[in-house]
Amino acid sequence: DTKLKIFSLNSNYPLAQEIAEQMGVELGKSSVKHFSDGEVQISIEESIRGCDVFIVQSTSAPVNEHLMELLIMIDAVKRASARTINVVMPYYGYARQDRKAKAREPITAKLVANLLETAGADRVIVLDLHAPQIQGFFDILIDHLVAVPILSDYFKTKNFNPEDVVIVSPDHGGVTRARKMAERLKAPIAIIDKRRPKPNVAEVMNIVGNIEGKICILIDDIIDTAGTITIGANALIESGAKEVYACCSHPVLSGPAIERIENSAIKELVVTNTIQLSEEKISPKVKQLSVANLMAEAISRVYENKSVSTLFD
Amino acid sequence: DTKLKIFSLNSNYPLAQEIAEQMGVELGKSSVKHFSDGEVQISIEESIRGCDVFIVQSTSAPVNEHLMELLIMIDAVKRASARTINVVMPYYGYARQDRKAKAREPITAKLVANLLETAGADRVIVLDLHAPQIQGFFDILIDHLVAVPILSDYFKTKNFNPEDVVIVSPDHGGVTRARKMAERLKAPIAIIDKRRPKPNVAEVMNIVGNIEGKICILIDDIIDTAGTITIGANALIESGAKEVYACCSHPVLSGPAIERIENSAIKELVVTNTIQLSEEKISPKVKQLSVANLMAEAISRVYENKSVSTLFD
Ligand SMILES: Nc1ncnc2c1ncn2[C@@H]1O[C@H](COP(=O)(O)O)[C@@H](O)[C@H]1O
Ligand SMILES: Nc1ncnc2c1ncn2[C@@H]1O[C@H](COP(=O)(O)O)[C@@H](O)[C@H]1O
Repeated sequence: DTKLKIFSLNSNYPLAQEIAEQMGVELGKSSVKHFSDGEVQISIEESIRGCDVFIVQSTSAPVNEHLMELLIMIDAVKRASARTINVVMPYYGYARQDRKAKAREPITAKLVANLLETAGADRVIVLDLHAPQIQGFFDILIDHLVAVPILSDYFKTKNFNPEDVVIVSPDHGGVTRARKMAERLKAPIAIIDKRRPKPNVAEVMNIVGNIEGKICILIDDIIDTAGTITIGANALIESGAKEVYACCSHPVLSGPAIERIENSAIKELVVTNTIQLSEEKISPKVKQLSVANLMAEAISRVYENKSVSTLFD
Repeated sequence: DTKLKIFSLNSNYPLAQEIAEQMGVELGKSSVKHFSDGEVQISIEESIRGCDVFIVQSTSAPVNEHLMELLIMIDAVKRASARTINVVMPYYGYARQDRKAKAREPITAKLVANLLETAGADRVIVLDLHAPQIQGFFDILIDHLVAVPILSDYFKTKNFNPEDVVIVSPDHGGVTRARKMAERLKAPIAIIDKRRPKPNVAEVMNIVGNIEGKICILIDDIIDTAGTITIGANALIESGAKEVYACCSHPVLSGPAIERIENSAIKELVVTNTIQLSEEKISPKVKQLSVANLMAEAISRVYENKSVSTLFD
């Protein structure tokens, strides 16, 4: 009888289910409900004494609800005498609040790291943090997986002529990510360079790199309201691109995102399932790829005390 | 220029406002909003360097939202170089999750204490914790205020003949609280004694104490779905009580509470404003008393480094 237990909370049950199937185990039995006043009520319904427990939870919207579920579950698992508590967070919410951009702002990404440790997590497994520096916010072990191989493999199946393809970063911050995909697809890169000539004057968009007549693949880590990506896609077409694909690891897709994507020049948006898409976010333009294999492999290696680092690139 | 700053978050702005007015200060300027994806966005809009900061927030419903607002605000205040961070929680959510009632349950009241400390709180001021033992969950300073004097003073204004009044505890757990009110009103106590003769057989209600022809005042700390209190009130009337009042510190009033109260034998329900009542919870039967004076007094004493303990009883 195995000492490995995988539990799912409420944010992304289908992904947790897929991970468990992949690993040939059943999800642990637990119940996550709410009392009448909305307080989270968790109970674990099987013994986990001495087990290595993995809790799968993305802190996607509603982020505060999902984060508190996770913290309370960690507390319950700790008090149930688990051997190790491993938190699998395919999407790490609050990652964009990772520095004081202005005076007297919080650094919520660091707060969340501290809260997870305080609750009792021994290790976290994450995927494509908004900034890799967030790894340093943790004093516990952290494994940082990347989705670029999954996204790249999908575009390989399209059999584009490599010479026709350009990988485009929608901003300066994403160039490293674009470079990684470009290496896998043996394609060059381009960068959308936004500049505000004077305060209160509209931004000017300038494309660095040759995209004329090319198939452009925009890559970002998070697509939230989809403003940056759709404006970028339209600018690429106006500048002579043949067609534009977009991809990202985390489809936050809040507010006007789906509408913007549907009305944009983007031919297809390729995302992963780190965040479960609600009914109204399912669109014929959006293709969702699974990270379940990657997550399952990482969990297996952590459980067997093998190196996870080959999954980092 | 004062070094005292009081900030309100979103759970109970009217109470915070009243506290500030009472103390003759303005509430600190801050903004608590949400990004498009629902993540909390806080910024403090005035210098608090070297100040003693008091943050007023009840962790009432939506509890996870209000708790995360509080934790993020503490983080922001800490990073803005406040001298001390004092958390004023008129209502402390998750207080009923204060022990493992069954195997493999969390102790969320303790988790919340740890989270507040981790975020950076130096001191907390609370009122009528569900169990006074929760004070011991904190390694930081905690001041535990009580509402019994406020509730008692209100009933004094009714000028009942003390001989006609009985203070009733709706269960065994609340006897100490009932006793405190009874002392203030110079009245005897009674207890509603529920007993299940056999498993799966309906509870039998037995009233310990003389309530015949009396004005009964039921007292509890939290009234949530109002099942206990309304069943108790009806039982008192059936057993010969003349009339029944009810009172509590924290009007959670979730689910069917208001309907139950309106349809019950309760003549008037007296509560405090530790929890702000939403529109649909306002009822002609519910009288709300303010704890603003008490809270303001506690904040003043903490700020002036005077003893708060005379407010504990
Ligand atoms: N949930 C969020 N939605 C939108 N913007 C955010 C969010 N969280 C943080 N930010 C802001 O995004 C900026 C960081 O994004 P970036 O420059 O891409 O690293 C900071 O200025 C944050 O204030
Ligand atoms: N928010 C809540 N609503 C209803 N019951 C709760 C809540 N939180 C905890 N409980 C349960 O209430 C019981 C504790 O209440 P008490 O016996 O009055 O101290 C425990 O069995 C808890 O599981």
